[in-house]
Amino acid sequence: MSRSDLRETLLKPGERLDDLQRNGHEIIQDPDRFCFGMDAVLLSGFAKVKNGGKAIDLGTGTGILPILLSAKTGGRHFTGLEVQHDSADMASRSVKLNGLEDRIDIIEGDIKEVRALFDAASFDTVVTNPPYMTGGHGIVNPEGPKAIARHEILCTLKDVVTAAAYLLKEGAGLYMVHRPFRLPEIFEEMRKVNIEPKRMRLVYPSVDKEPSMVLIEGRKGGNQRLKCEKPLIINGEDGRYTREITEVYGY
Amino acid sequence: MSRSDLRETLLKPGERLDDLQRNGHEIIQDPDRFCFGMDAVLLSGFAKVKNGGKAIDLGTGTGILPILLSAKTGGRHFTGLEVQHDSADMASRSVKLNGLEDRIDIIEGDIKEVRALFDAASFDTVVTNPPYMTGGHGIVNPEGPKAIARHEILCTLKDVVTAAAYLLKEGAGLYMVHRPFRLPEIFEEMRKVNIEPKRMRLVYPSVDKEPSMVLIEGRKGGNQRLKCEKPLIINGEDGRYTREITEVYGY
Repeated sequence: MSRSDLRETLLKPGERLDDLQRNGHEIIQDPDRFCFGMDAVLLSGFAKVKNGGKAIDLGTGTGILPILLSAKTGGRHFTGLEVQHDSADMASRSVKLNGLEDRIDIIEGDIKEVRALFDAASFDTVVTNPPYMTGGHGIVNPEGPKAIARHEILCTLKDVVTAAAYLLKEGAGLYMVHRPFRLPEIFEEMRKVNIEPKRMRLVYPSVDKEPSMVLIEGRKGGNQRLKCEKPLIINGEDGRYTREITEVYGY
Repeated sequence: MSRSDLRETLLKPGERLDDLQRNGHEIIQDPDRFCFGMDAVLLSGFAKVKNGGKAIDLGTGTGILPILLSAKTGGRHFTGLEVQHDSADMASRSVKLNGLEDRIDIIEGDIKEVRALFDAASFDTVVTNPPYMTGGHGIVNPEGPKAIARHEILCTLKDVVTAAAYLLKEGAGLYMVHRPFRLPEIFEEMRKVNIEPKRMRLVYPSVDKEPSMVLIEGRKGGNQRLKCEKPLIINGEDGRYTREITEVYGY
């Protein structure tokens, strides 16, 4: 089947195709559900997957991270775990659309149930772009996909790092993007499950603004010493994306 | 006694007087012992002492923090606690030289013995610029004042935050300058003694460099939520101090 036929077959009403500017890959998204953001793209540049390695994305949504990592790294195999049926289905169709079925598996399942789904210490890399906000109190539509992606309704930070600690080989890395306001908790939950924070980069919208995101690498069984990297600045003084954002991250 | 007579009386051989560029204050330092650095000055700008409040500096060295805070804030009284006799003596003489005896007490004593020296919950602010490096193994002169100021020979991070937790009133603030590589430990030790990290600012030598220092505010009994501030950049693209460093910090 040709790519354009594939597109027609795989796309459902309300969905759109976005070009990922990387290896010709495209991704299916539904603006009414949830679209990936710069956080996922920055994480895909921050995360490391060794050549021939196996990686898993906890809460993959539309599958953006496995697709980008398959293009950017020499990893052999990528798994995207997603609890929401419709998102997992969309991600599977994007994998098919890009002809990546041999390198990416999308699995519908719960982060809290990884012990039933995967072997212990079976991954070289865990990546995750988890919900940033605690609780789900007062949310108008707590069962909506946007709420689930943003708020800790179906899983907490603790659930995510606990799953990562189970899945990672000794010495292997967890890569996470999160909000800086939760840094103390993130470090604490990681250390509780023996994942030591080893590398951190704050992402600033511009040089005179508070950081909006933090990229964190933890290592299972690592020793204490955090490497804080130079700031990642999104917009230069001219208001345009900085060279690092356009070059490294492909914006 | 005139200021110049005072200078002559108070200065010992090998010591020098440095102008603090603030309220005409000067400080006695001995380059063979330890001279204060930019970290202390940045902390004096980051720390908050309420009008009429009582503050203490744990490990005051030459007394730089109480002297700067007495000039920069409306605090009523400042205590500098210092375990090394010669440093405490030098700090006391600097207090006298600046005529600050009514606002600053220098007390010779050990951070680990604060329970014997002060009442519990008797301070509105604790500041500290503690030794950054763990252990003292392999140091040529572990009893030298420079080693004691830089390495955790006489007190550890845990000792410092434990003392702070004892000294602070409920809801009052601990202000610390430290190295970013120890952030996870700093947050963990603070939280263990119920001091919640509430504000953090990374200090970058320039916009394309790794941060060299971190300024942290914790609040006794505070709730979880860290405010990460905009980056503090020391040198601009022209290689000179940025406006914030010259204006706010008086360099």
